[in-house]
Amino acid sequence: TISTMATIEELRLRVRELENELIKCKQKQCAEGDAQSDSLHRPKIDKMSAEVVDSNPYSRLMALKRMGIVDDYEVSNRKFSIEFLYADLLLFDYDKVELANMNRLFFQPHQAGLSKVEAAEHTLRNINPDVSFEMYNYNITTMENFTHFMERISHGGLKEGKPVDLVLSCVDNFEARMAINTACNELGQTWMESGVSENAVSGHIQLIVPGETACFACAPPLVVAANIDEKTLKREGVCAASLPTTMGVVAGLLVQNVLKYLLKFGTVSYYLGYNAMQDFFPSMTMKANPQCNDYYCKKQQEEFKKKEAERPKVEVVEEVEEEIVHEDNEWGIELVSEISEADLQAASGPMPDLPEGITVAYTLPTEVPVEGETVDVANQSLEELMAKMKNL
Amino acid sequence: TISTMATIEELRLRVRELENELIKCKQKQCAEGDAQSDSLHRPKIDKMSAEVVDSNPYSRLMALKRMGIVDDYEVSNRKFSIEFLYADLLLFDYDKVELANMNRLFFQPHQAGLSKVEAAEHTLRNINPDVSFEMYNYNITTMENFTHFMERISHGGLKEGKPVDLVLSCVDNFEARMAINTACNELGQTWMESGVSENAVSGHIQLIVPGETACFACAPPLVVAANIDEKTLKREGVCAASLPTTMGVVAGLLVQNVLKYLLKFGTVSYYLGYNAMQDFFPSMTMKANPQCNDYYCKKQQEEFKKKEAERPKVEVVEEVEEEIVHEDNEWGIELVSEISEADLQAASGPMPDLPEGITVAYTLPTEVPVEGETVDVANQSLEELMAKMKNL
Repeated sequence: TISTMATIEELRLRVRELENELIKCKQKQCAEGDAQSDSLHRPKIDKMSAEVVDSNPYSRLMALKRMGIVDDYEVSNRKFSIEFLYADLLLFDYDKVELANMNRLFFQPHQAGLSKVEAAEHTLRNINPDVSFEMYNYNITTMENFTHFMERISHGGLKEGKPVDLVLSCVDNFEARMAINTACNELGQTWMESGVSENAVSGHIQLIVPGETACFACAPPLVVAANIDEKTLKREGVCAASLPTTMGVVAGLLVQNVLKYLLKFGTVSYYLGYNAMQDFFPSMTMKANPQCNDYYCKKQQEEFKKKEAERPKVEVVEEVEEEIVHEDNEWGIELVSEISEADLQAASGPMPDLPEGITVAYTLPTEVPVEGETVDVANQSLEELMAKMKNL
Repeated sequence: TISTMATIEELRLRVRELENELIKCKQKQCAEGDAQSDSLHRPKIDKMSAEVVDSNPYSRLMALKRMGIVDDYEVSNRKFSIEFLYADLLLFDYDKVELANMNRLFFQPHQAGLSKVEAAEHTLRNINPDVSFEMYNYNITTMENFTHFMERISHGGLKEGKPVDLVLSCVDNFEARMAINTACNELGQTWMESGVSENAVSGHIQLIVPGETACFACAPPLVVAANIDEKTLKREGVCAASLPTTMGVVAGLLVQNVLKYLLKFGTVSYYLGYNAMQDFFPSMTMKANPQCNDYYCKKQQEEFKKKEAERPKVEVVEEVEEEIVHEDNEWGIELVSEISEADLQAASGPMPDLPEGITVAYTLPTEVPVEGETVDVANQSLEELMAKMKNL
């Protein structure tokens, strides 16, 4: 009938209409997806170029070489080229991104809840797709993870199966630093330690070459002195403060030191402190302690001595200890451990000879009668010392 | 007929199918849009809190107050509260984002082509929706824009119609710095200048209080000395180098100085240099030059003298000039202008008494016979000096 035919025709029209609309909807979705991935990611670059054009993301770096500041972009005997850029970055962290981290620029609100390694990898990959990553979302201080951590830093390097070029420590606690120290001493792995104080107004970077410079167990951790009443820091309900400024400066100094170390330009700093209150930057060098309690530290010291003895005298590296004299003498003592000022005043443990502006994280009280033993600081590990101090 | 009915039934089914698919497609689009805006933006915060919970983006900052480092988060007589957070940030820049800028973290590849103010505002708003922005995508050195720039810094402050609290200069050329200097001298507006050298391995920050400290026209611009052969810097086809590390450190020091100045903690630096090659940080203070050629600078100096005279003697602010002595004496002279080393050797113009590690961007050659006049450096503006030097 006519009405049936009309119905069929209407339905066919409706089908065509809907099909068109659906195609449009799906096209829109695809377009959005494409636009998003097009705009969010630049393609990988096959061949590095020093060409001075706005579209070259490496022109500003290559300028450094042409200016003669950087001799060559060579790391692990590979030239600054596509291989260099495929350098693996290994990230280890067990924390999750929180809104409280947003006062630093790196993490963004939509990343809250992601693991920090995942969020960091995502941001970094977007900025530079030429770098590849290995991410480990775990705590390096547990036995199993520690073993895996050591395996990766000793075999996860740029040259397959070889050690990494450098380990960077950007952690906020003693245990994690000690884990890195233990691993690097055993492996003879050069590393750089960094830290920001709980009050957010000082920080430091430190280069540790096992056997050569003091390791984290050779002496109490070095921190930047600050003339702030530490009692206020211990108040209940006060979380560690953080300033993006202090973190930015310390991170900048750390990565600058990494560039100078890996690309061999300028003077690499052994210990560089940052006192934000006075804009004071104390620096120093500290040799490894022959009495260090870390077995592998002492072993590395022996190896270093052998190498030094074998080396022709002309090539002996001069370690210039930079000493900065500062007019302002009002430096206090900063404590990052849980000992009180009274403990500090009672302290008499051997204090390394430190330049102005640098102090130790804690010292040893005068009398520590532990089961009749006399405390011999030089023969105790930091862990033992800390344990004893906690028991006081 | 049955076949007709079957056709109709089939078509109806198809219509229903398509309608369902279309609804799903549209729902998916909406959900994606929502998810995107939900995940990309956190809501504004109505009431500040010092509560120590992971979801509070301000807990780390409030800790500074509870630690007694920052007295109060007060700027322009407004407490650190929702008003403080609505502080306008006024951005002036005429440049566009290029891929070559990607070696710094702030801009991301998908922003290439956007104006820098727009890209910056977008990134910053995502991170902290509590801050509002005014953006001006123009060159402040043209007459019309300069007038508008002055109008905004004198009336675009936190308190409506009042001046801004501080002007930050993060520019890469002499003309823009001089424009900011001229505006701030006329308005009596305190500002902070910053810069990174063309070779990317040094930088500085400088606080300028009109009438009190040297303005940009009082003396040749102060730069950080570096022992690098400058001849290599002038090679053809070499663009300015840039390192995210140096920029990160200088930006960190600048904003740290801003926080210390606005929130009144620590010692605010007048001039702080950063020599990345040696990790050396020279600092100094320089008083305004009574012979400055900027009319408003001299006027501000008179006003400052009057105020100082009227002030009770007890309250006189002591300007402690911090002098740092450094063992390494191999500082060269860095030139950022276009004069050659030969020009420099022939120079005899009065050189301010500078601490080690700081030098001037250029000096005046011994004899400059310009229309029979004897050159009197103290009575000439930098612009005149530069013009004369270019004519040599």
